[in-house]
Amino acid sequence: MSKKHNFGAGPCILPQEVFAEAAKAVLDFNGLSILEVSHRSPDFIAVMDEARDLVKASLNVPEGYSVLFLQGGASLGFLISAMNMAGKNKRAAYVDTGAWSTKAIKEAKNAGLTVDVVATSEDKNFNYIPKTINAGNEYDYIHFTSNNTIFGTQFKTLPKFDIPVVCDMSSDIFSREINVGDFDIIYAGAQKNLGPAGATLFIVKDSILGQSTIDMPTYLNLKTHQSKDSMFNTPPVFSIYVSMLNLRHLIKNGGVKAIATKNDAKADLLYNEIDANPFFKGATAVEDRSNMNVTFVLTDESKQAAFDELWKAANVVGLKGHRSVGGYRASMYNALNIDSVEVLVNCMKAVK
Amino acid sequence: MSKKHNFGAGPCILPQEVFAEAAKAVLDFNGLSILEVSHRSPDFIAVMDEARDLVKASLNVPEGYSVLFLQGGASLGFLISAMNMAGKNKRAAYVDTGAWSTKAIKEAKNAGLTVDVVATSEDKNFNYIPKTINAGNEYDYIHFTSNNTIFGTQFKTLPKFDIPVVCDMSSDIFSREINVGDFDIIYAGAQKNLGPAGATLFIVKDSILGQSTIDMPTYLNLKTHQSKDSMFNTPPVFSIYVSMLNLRHLIKNGGVKAIATKNDAKADLLYNEIDANPFFKGATAVEDRSNMNVTFVLTDESKQAAFDELWKAANVVGLKGHRSVGGYRASMYNALNIDSVEVLVNCMKAVK
Repeated sequence: MSKKHNFGAGPCILPQEVFAEAAKAVLDFNGLSILEVSHRSPDFIAVMDEARDLVKASLNVPEGYSVLFLQGGASLGFLISAMNMAGKNKRAAYVDTGAWSTKAIKEAKNAGLTVDVVATSEDKNFNYIPKTINAGNEYDYIHFTSNNTIFGTQFKTLPKFDIPVVCDMSSDIFSREINVGDFDIIYAGAQKNLGPAGATLFIVKDSILGQSTIDMPTYLNLKTHQSKDSMFNTPPVFSIYVSMLNLRHLIKNGGVKAIATKNDAKADLLYNEIDANPFFKGATAVEDRSNMNVTFVLTDESKQAAFDELWKAANVVGLKGHRSVGGYRASMYNALNIDSVEVLVNCMKAVK
Repeated sequence: MSKKHNFGAGPCILPQEVFAEAAKAVLDFNGLSILEVSHRSPDFIAVMDEARDLVKASLNVPEGYSVLFLQGGASLGFLISAMNMAGKNKRAAYVDTGAWSTKAIKEAKNAGLTVDVVATSEDKNFNYIPKTINAGNEYDYIHFTSNNTIFGTQFKTLPKFDIPVVCDMSSDIFSREINVGDFDIIYAGAQKNLGPAGATLFIVKDSILGQSTIDMPTYLNLKTHQSKDSMFNTPPVFSIYVSMLNLRHLIKNGGVKAIATKNDAKADLLYNEIDANPFFKGATAVEDRSNMNVTFVLTDESKQAAFDELWKAANVVGLKGHRSVGGYRASMYNALNIDSVEVLVNCMKAVK
């Protein structure tokens, strides 16, 4: 079988070594399958502890923060983060960079908060990141999405604020260095640079736990999960195990700092081709281009069949753009090697 | 490596063939790892469709019901089922058979409902199933837990009611034949007889969808998941894939009817030994003994070290009783073979 180059937007490619180790554990993890071990067993508690510690190590999580694994993805995270951050104003500021941000706004309202959209790029179908964002202390917190998988935009520098900050980092966490201390809640679905679908990561400033001004059901209260070391109920054992393997692999290969350099190189390679090749153009503002999800279109639609044939023949998969943008989307998560990007660039060069 | 006999309470044993196929798919599922396939890909949509169809086939789910896969386990299901069933009375009847039922009651209250406990076995530390349960139409619905993993009790005959019925079947679904038409919502964490931890099954009568009298956040509304074929957000891909494999295996081997006969035989074997052996006694009322979780204690505590040495030497694992009951708990889910029960019974016979 020839190797496929997986540019899919997520669930996405993980390192081949991680797949190999995960498959082995499905057959034998200390004498049982990893799929049949009790989450209360010392063997799995060690996995959970190591996963938590590796998140802390790879992102330099400071004292006073907890790392939690839940379920439900960012889609439930929208609600959980709003509920847990509700303060005396019950009012929050949201930056709307499209799709995920828009859904986050909806769930904050469902949580009972008044939401003000303090910055948006809706006027240009979210093809850029708003540059001026002001939010005063009439707000309990401000929320933004660090990277938009659909439109291919990314906060190249993460903004800072004088009020509590919540960030959905689902699609670029572990891809670059961040300062966790600038945030009150970071949350992320696992299925990009962390692990397989099924787990949701929360990094939470301990001082916000239990401070919400609204009543919450037990599962939605982050305090529940923090007080039980993410074992309030049966956790998604296998997703957490594979996340642990993947974080081990990340750290063994130089950690977030090293992968960020590789991600920059991959992005440079592809964006340079997009800019140099007359048959292609980027779909977003140049200064807001995502390193994770590269969106681009053909300048001459008559070349589509020829280009599609080229990349399919080269074993490239997952390149179709999201229906709300069209064109192409090359997602280049941590585990995608630069060789795969070279294969794609060569297909682009071959368009005549 | 000698084979372990896994009597763990969950996540629990699944068929060895399922582990083998799952491991293969982690390495190669149509050219990618199952862990990196897009949930929007035709390959995974086919998995989701088959998983849904196999649930329907194995439980004879009638027309007018939807099969949904969510996340969060029964712990989030407690809340979701209450929110979705809230009717004009905003009042619900609950049967309290301990632990999980008690938590379900708490979350129904958190959903804003008034809860009446219409039957309980709390007076005897939940070691039996209440026999008389009355609930009139002042209640929007009645809720019960079909099997209690901790205390080892089970409704041997599922009760019927004249009002809508919600049942948490986490620990015995697919272990015996049921009449789905008697229920409005059945929910179950996957990690017993369905698949690995990380997915939550809902079987829902379509006519209740969208009828709740309380406002719900998007993720918690079952209508959200039904209208998107369980693809509202990224589903727990691998858990659903393995659940599909496991249901294929179940049906290939005669389905729920055949496995129920095997489960009865395993239960008879172990309970007969408990009753015949002077060193052991069962921990529950005889008529309410669970086929899934067999709880028992030593009549002579001085034999504990000897018995523990025997079963550990025989490669039996997962036999420790829950802290709230003590003693031993032998969980005998579908995939546990009768040979394993024979091994355990022989250890019991060897106690002198």
